[in-house]
Amino acid sequence: MSLLVLGTLAYDDIETPFDRRTRALGGSAVYFAVAASTFCPVRLCGIIGKDFEERHLELLRGRGVDTSGVERAAGDSFHWGGRYEADWNTRTTLFTRLNVLENFHPKLPAAFCDSRYVFLANAEPKVQLEALAQCPQRKFVVADTMNFWIEQFLPDLKQLLSKVDGIVLNDEEARMLAGERNLIRAARKVLAMGPRYVLLKKGEHGAFLIGEDAHFSLPAYPVDQVVDPTGAGDCFAGGFMGAIAAADNIEPRTLRRAMLYGTVTASFCVQGFSIEDIARRGRAEIEQRFNELLQITTV
Amino acid sequence: MSLLVLGTLAYDDIETPFDRRTRALGGSAVYFAVAASTFCPVRLCGIIGKDFEERHLELLRGRGVDTSGVERAAGDSFHWGGRYEADWNTRTTLFTRLNVLENFHPKLPAAFCDSRYVFLANAEPKVQLEALAQCPQRKFVVADTMNFWIEQFLPDLKQLLSKVDGIVLNDEEARMLAGERNLIRAARKVLAMGPRYVLLKKGEHGAFLIGEDAHFSLPAYPVDQVVDPTGAGDCFAGGFMGAIAAADNIEPRTLRRAMLYGTVTASFCVQGFSIEDIARRGRAEIEQRFNELLQITTV
Repeated sequence: MSLLVLGTLAYDDIETPFDRRTRALGGSAVYFAVAASTFCPVRLCGIIGKDFEERHLELLRGRGVDTSGVERAAGDSFHWGGRYEADWNTRTTLFTRLNVLENFHPKLPAAFCDSRYVFLANAEPKVQLEALAQCPQRKFVVADTMNFWIEQFLPDLKQLLSKVDGIVLNDEEARMLAGERNLIRAARKVLAMGPRYVLLKKGEHGAFLIGEDAHFSLPAYPVDQVVDPTGAGDCFAGGFMGAIAAADNIEPRTLRRAMLYGTVTASFCVQGFSIEDIARRGRAEIEQRFNELLQITTV
Repeated sequence: MSLLVLGTLAYDDIETPFDRRTRALGGSAVYFAVAASTFCPVRLCGIIGKDFEERHLELLRGRGVDTSGVERAAGDSFHWGGRYEADWNTRTTLFTRLNVLENFHPKLPAAFCDSRYVFLANAEPKVQLEALAQCPQRKFVVADTMNFWIEQFLPDLKQLLSKVDGIVLNDEEARMLAGERNLIRAARKVLAMGPRYVLLKKGEHGAFLIGEDAHFSLPAYPVDQVVDPTGAGDCFAGGFMGAIAAADNIEPRTLRRAMLYGTVTASFCVQGFSIEDIARRGRAEIEQRFNELLQITTV
């Protein structure tokens, strides 16, 4: 079914304890689209600069991603640099060059406006709201956010929360947004702000989904060699939303299976730099690891 | 059926961010026995001092714990003091008074020597080996340990590892013992030291069991109000071993269900100081939370 993602297309400079890359393909919408496109066609809305390489758009199109919502502007593409410490949990942002992203206002192609499944990747809440307003036929919308918007744009974020079905948060973001250390209580406080579901990502410790009528928790897939955690959260969202859009329903069993698919796509993501690993995995490998994860977590 | 535990009976002084207790009933064997006795009779081997209150032995006996293996010596009981920080993960030991524990050599009553299921709680590896040698009919033995023995008594610990079926480790201990940060790789390295199974406890992040022929991972039960984490690991082991001894087999499904039972007993434990919460839970409440956890973790 129609799955739309609003997010960034970027180049990343990444340092890990073992290696480094400059100008690696990145951005939330890129990671999301690569993961989700294993499940269903994806419509991508975002902005790139004159430096964005055509081959990277072709890579996305080759996976069934409709890039007609990608605007090319004068200036450079969004460029981020970061470093991971040996525990993989400590990430230092070395620089953030917003570039073309600075004045981005999403304009969906007419053909995208009937999208039913929508993922609003991490962006200024006002920009996420602008995109949302262009999807009158939306059925299930999930948004991502980050500490900066929680601290600086809370009223806008709360408006967004009242209009989406789900919000994706990591543990730190959930604690900040709720003002509560215990993650279960934090998630329940966020639910009270409007969304029907909170998806709480705990990295190597797994994830849980909580809602008034739902609670599902699962450990991460046991990856024994992490190469680069960048994009894992967006790949999780991509697997989750891709599986839901493919099933075209949000029944409890679909949501639970989607959490497993998200866990699987995230696990491939961290095994390589940029999208290198996840982009070469076909549906068969996704299904194989899905079954392995099911085996590991079923009594 | 016959389940034996070797471990400590102690008094604990505990400070949390919200409250404090002095001379609270504690000790690994006490926590283990309280949790395990919900499932089957428990034989307890340990040492107490003249100060150990009779009502605390009666409490254990009232739960079906055979305390005939508890030796009373001159001197004071093992006494430990610790403080938890607001994140619950940082624990500072304020004092450790070994007292009667210092020269303890376990001597099992004759009636205990046919024990088939054995848990060797955290102790000097040589003492654990002494107890093990007195159980010729053992069928399934699991041991616990701690960083001190890993650092100072590694050859003895390795001898123990070659003789037990399972070892219980928290994440920090597994990393130290294996010299490896990644927990999956660390667990596999520990498997190569002899035990058939490694049980890796990650506190609020759940636990996993790994073996040559087994891999099962589950999140923690979502406790929304932690009061005192002391003894959670021993209650986990108690629920795990109790469920296995009650089933009287170590088939994969039994081990997996036992992991859930351990998770449940640990979750009750942290809801109160000392054994206050877990000691008042009957089998019906254990089963209710078991089913709830199953519901939360099943696709």
